[in-house]
Amino acid sequence: MNRERLEQQLAFALEIDKEKQVLRQTHLSGHGRRENDAEHAWHMTVMAYLLQEYANEPIDIARTMIMTLTHDLVEIYAGDTYAYDTEGQLTAHAREVEAADRLFGLLPPDQAAHLRAIWEEFEARETPEARFARAMDSVQPMMLNDSNDGADWKARGIARSAPASRNEVTRTGSRELAAYIDERLDAHVAAGNLRDA
Amino acid sequence: MNRERLEQQLAFALEIDKEKQVLRQTHLSGHGRRENDAEHAWHMTVMAYLLQEYANEPIDIARTMIMTLTHDLVEIYAGDTYAYDTEGQLTAHAREVEAADRLFGLLPPDQAAHLRAIWEEFEARETPEARFARAMDSVQPMMLNDSNDGADWKARGIARSAPASRNEVTRTGSRELAAYIDERLDAHVAAGNLRDA
Repeated sequence: MNRERLEQQLAFALEIDKEKQVLRQTHLSGHGRRENDAEHAWHMTVMAYLLQEYANEPIDIARTMIMTLTHDLVEIYAGDTYAYDTEGQLTAHAREVEAADRLFGLLPPDQAAHLRAIWEEFEARETPEARFARAMDSVQPMMLNDSNDGADWKARGIARSAPASRNEVTRTGSRELAAYIDERLDAHVAAGNLRDA
Repeated sequence: MNRERLEQQLAFALEIDKEKQVLRQTHLSGHGRRENDAEHAWHMTVMAYLLQEYANEPIDIARTMIMTLTHDLVEIYAGDTYAYDTEGQLTAHAREVEAADRLFGLLPPDQAAHLRAIWEEFEARETPEARFARAMDSVQPMMLNDSNDGADWKARGIARSAPASRNEVTRTGSRELAAYIDERLDAHVAAGNLRDA
C-alpha cells in the first residue's frame, strides 16, 4: 500500500465533511429546516437510481451516481447560489472553477483528474449521464417544495417562468419527469403558490 | 408511462426525506453538531467510490453504492442504535425488519424486492460488496471521531476493545484500511482518548 496516496484520499474525505455545512434555499418536507448540500446529494442520488428508467437515453448508473454525489462539492469553498438568483449565477462558475482546483487538488493526481472531469461533465450537460443528473438536481428540490405547498416559491414571489425554465433542462434528461413537473407547476399556479408569469 | 408506478416511486422518495432527521452519535469534524443518517450515507458512499481499490475482493461499485446509500433507511422508523449499545443491538434487528416491510412496501413491487434484497445483503455481510460497505460504515465515523481527538469515545469512556471489534468487521472488507485504523486506535489509546482494555 502507498501510504501517501491513502493519506491524500483520507484528507479529501475529511475535507468534504464540510459539505454538510453548506445550506441551500430548499426546506425539508414537513415545512422543516433548510437542507444542506450533502443531504441534497444523497437524496438525488437515491432518486437517480430509482428513477433511471425515465432517462431519455441509456445511462451508466455508477457514473451518474458519483456525479450526483459530488456535483456540489465545489460549493464548500464557492458557496451555494440560489437557482433563481440570476446575478449570482453569472459569477458562480468562476468561483466554482477556483474551488475545484483547490478541492480536487487534495486527491492523488489520477483521482483529482477523474472527479474534476466528472464535475466538468455535469456542468457541460453534454452526456446522457449529465443530462439525467441535472434532471435530478432540479426534480429533488421541486419535490420537497411541492410537498410544502410551494413555500420556497411563495416566500420569494417566484413566477412560474423560473421553475418552468429549469424544467426545460430536466426535459433534456427526462421527458417523462418534466411532463410530471409541468403538471405540478400548473397546480401550484392554480393554488396561488406560484405567480402566473 | 405508468402513472401509478411513478407516484409510488415519488411517494417513497419523499418519505425517505425523513432520514435527514435521524441523528447519530457521531459528531461532524471541527467538533461540530451530531451527524444525521443521510449525511453519513452520502459521506460513506463517496468514500466507497474513492477507496474501492482497498477492497479485499473485486466489487461491483454501483451495487456497493446503492447499498451504502440505503443501508440505514430502516432507521427512519426503527431509530438509530449506537454501535456500542450492546443491549439496543439485540432488539435492533427485529425493529428494523418491521421497518423494512413498511418502508420498502411504498415502492412498486419489483423495486421494493430489489432494495429489500440489497438491505438484507448488507446485513448478512456475505458478499464482497456487503463486506466493503460494512467497512465504510465503520471507517467513516471513525475518521470523523479521529479528527475530533476521539471526543465521541471520551464522552462515553469507551475501551479500545469496542472499536477494535468493529475493526475486525472492517478487516473482512479491507485489510489495508483495517491496518490503518489499528494504528489510529493505538494512537488514541496513547493519547488517553480510548481506555486501554
